[in-house]
Amino acid sequence: MVGKSYSMTSWDLDLDGATPVTPDALTRLTAALEADLQETNRAIVARMESPVALIPQLAAHLVAAGGKRLRPLLTLASARLCGYRGDRHVQLAACVEFIHTATLLHDDVVDESILRRGHASANAVFGNKASVLVGDFLFARAFQLMVADGSLDVLRILSSAAATIAEGEVLQLTTQNDVATTEQRYFDVIRGKTAALFAAACEVGGVIADRPAAECAALARFGMDLGMAFQLVDDALDYSADVSELGKTIGDDFREGKLTYPVLIAIADGDAAETEFWNRSIGEGEQSDSDLATALALIDRHDAINRTVKRAQGFTETAIEALSIFPPSDLRDTMQDVASYTTARRF
Amino acid sequence: MVGKSYSMTSWDLDLDGATPVTPDALTRLTAALEADLQETNRAIVARMESPVALIPQLAAHLVAAGGKRLRPLLTLASARLCGYRGDRHVQLAACVEFIHTATLLHDDVVDESILRRGHASANAVFGNKASVLVGDFLFARAFQLMVADGSLDVLRILSSAAATIAEGEVLQLTTQNDVATTEQRYFDVIRGKTAALFAAACEVGGVIADRPAAECAALARFGMDLGMAFQLVDDALDYSADVSELGKTIGDDFREGKLTYPVLIAIADGDAAETEFWNRSIGEGEQSDSDLATALALIDRHDAINRTVKRAQGFTETAIEALSIFPPSDLRDTMQDVASYTTARRF
Repeated sequence: MVGKSYSMTSWDLDLDGATPVTPDALTRLTAALEADLQETNRAIVARMESPVALIPQLAAHLVAAGGKRLRPLLTLASARLCGYRGDRHVQLAACVEFIHTATLLHDDVVDESILRRGHASANAVFGNKASVLVGDFLFARAFQLMVADGSLDVLRILSSAAATIAEGEVLQLTTQNDVATTEQRYFDVIRGKTAALFAAACEVGGVIADRPAAECAALARFGMDLGMAFQLVDDALDYSADVSELGKTIGDDFREGKLTYPVLIAIADGDAAETEFWNRSIGEGEQSDSDLATALALIDRHDAINRTVKRAQGFTETAIEALSIFPPSDLRDTMQDVASYTTARRF
Repeated sequence: MVGKSYSMTSWDLDLDGATPVTPDALTRLTAALEADLQETNRAIVARMESPVALIPQLAAHLVAAGGKRLRPLLTLASARLCGYRGDRHVQLAACVEFIHTATLLHDDVVDESILRRGHASANAVFGNKASVLVGDFLFARAFQLMVADGSLDVLRILSSAAATIAEGEVLQLTTQNDVATTEQRYFDVIRGKTAALFAAACEVGGVIADRPAAECAALARFGMDLGMAFQLVDDALDYSADVSELGKTIGDDFREGKLTYPVLIAIADGDAAETEFWNRSIGEGEQSDSDLATALALIDRHDAINRTVKRAQGFTETAIEALSIFPPSDLRDTMQDVASYTTARRF
């Protein structure tokens, strides 16, 4: 399991999707960084080793499953865009992936209340506790790798990102089932839980290349806004019927009572009967089998998917703009194309 | 809650105990470091702040509850023993406490199987997910504090300890309900889950005082062996009837199927009928109401509590011996007395 080789040809922008898609921009970015990515995958496999066998076993389920390497790819691309020629970016890309995987493992943890509602979870094989502890190991290991790298700037950026991720996740927890959640609060949540790591992943690429603060900040801006767009689209996809054709289940966010952007739109523009529906189904978490269909119909009625994607496109545009301070190059263009693709996928 | 002042007069060596005890050695160590401890408590309260209100709320339940500051006390004592005169030890003592609290929060996470057996847990108020995420925040915040401190050596020591803690916890999970667990494996578990942080807490005190490697290693050895003794005694207390008089429940480890030292002794020396009992009650987790009483009787029959404490005393002796390279002083004597007290408590 741990020693398997990876196919670098199929990429998947979707966090949870089972079916890989091969978008052109990501394929090109991947191809441009093929050698670096292979090194990163070798580092990932090597560094998640432990005498405690369950750790690489469980980590392999997520880390070594292959396919999802968007965040480390951003570190590699940013470093190369800045003309970096060393090999520190490979270890730091592995760090970024470890931090991401730790958050995925901790996201798998379920509460008694959720168990009572009968939802299975990705941690079914190993249990809550193992997910938490192996996540902790990967998180600690990421910091060990950063310490070995030796840059306090890198450590500062990624430890801040880690704290911000946790804050975003806790904030999401407190907004769950809260139909009074504001748009601002939603953006605070996704900035923390998703965009902060995208931003840090990009910024460290500039830092290890010793680039001026303005360029590091531009990379952080690119990552941040790309991450915002990415999460907005992800939240749209969770209510997009098209996705089901690709093998992904929809309605997870609805069932968990998450106040994502499409729902915020539908709530804001809903009439009295719709308000009652959202209050019951999301606010109180009282759901019947037909409720997801109703939710989808209301979201469609208010054009909430398109409006969410439009909002994402605003972030994509500022992400693309942020990279304009770098001289034109194939790599820069491809990174910008990846941003464009984020809001184009599956629509 | 967060802004409350702390009583530094009552100390409790017991990880889970509700009733504070005031052992002489700890009281003296606490008194000797009173000013540093007050500063550390202020740093802890200040640094667990977040715009996300649930974070300080939940963290306050554990961090700010007062009383349990053994690990940061070790950092403060070690630094002072090395003649350190600055104020870095205060922030690092807070780091150590944050890492400890994060592990406590993650320890609160329960699995569906445990929930099904009807055990409540300390996370009942906030839920699994909140415990995990707030733990993540404290862990990340600890690293932010270390980065602000700026020593890569300190970062190396504490990130290694964090990885080792996670390994120990995962190993404990894999030995749960495994009646074939060896003594060696048990020691690997407690070295990871408990002693590694004690060792790191002491070592950083020497590192910030710029002491030679031999002295830093001696402090690490002191902490490691103190931690081993501490956990052995803790595992003995979980089967000690005396403890119930102090308000602590006993038998938690038994109910969770943990293979702790007293049980390893009883299993090793048990006859066929006893083997059958342990196989059923711990191996298969099939327990009836009278089983704890049976377990206690078997542990008593094989003198397993005293034998566990004797084993702990071996570690206490090497811990005390480790500090002998430091010149005699009140502080050194008190630290050694704390080690002696570890195996003397409640017997």
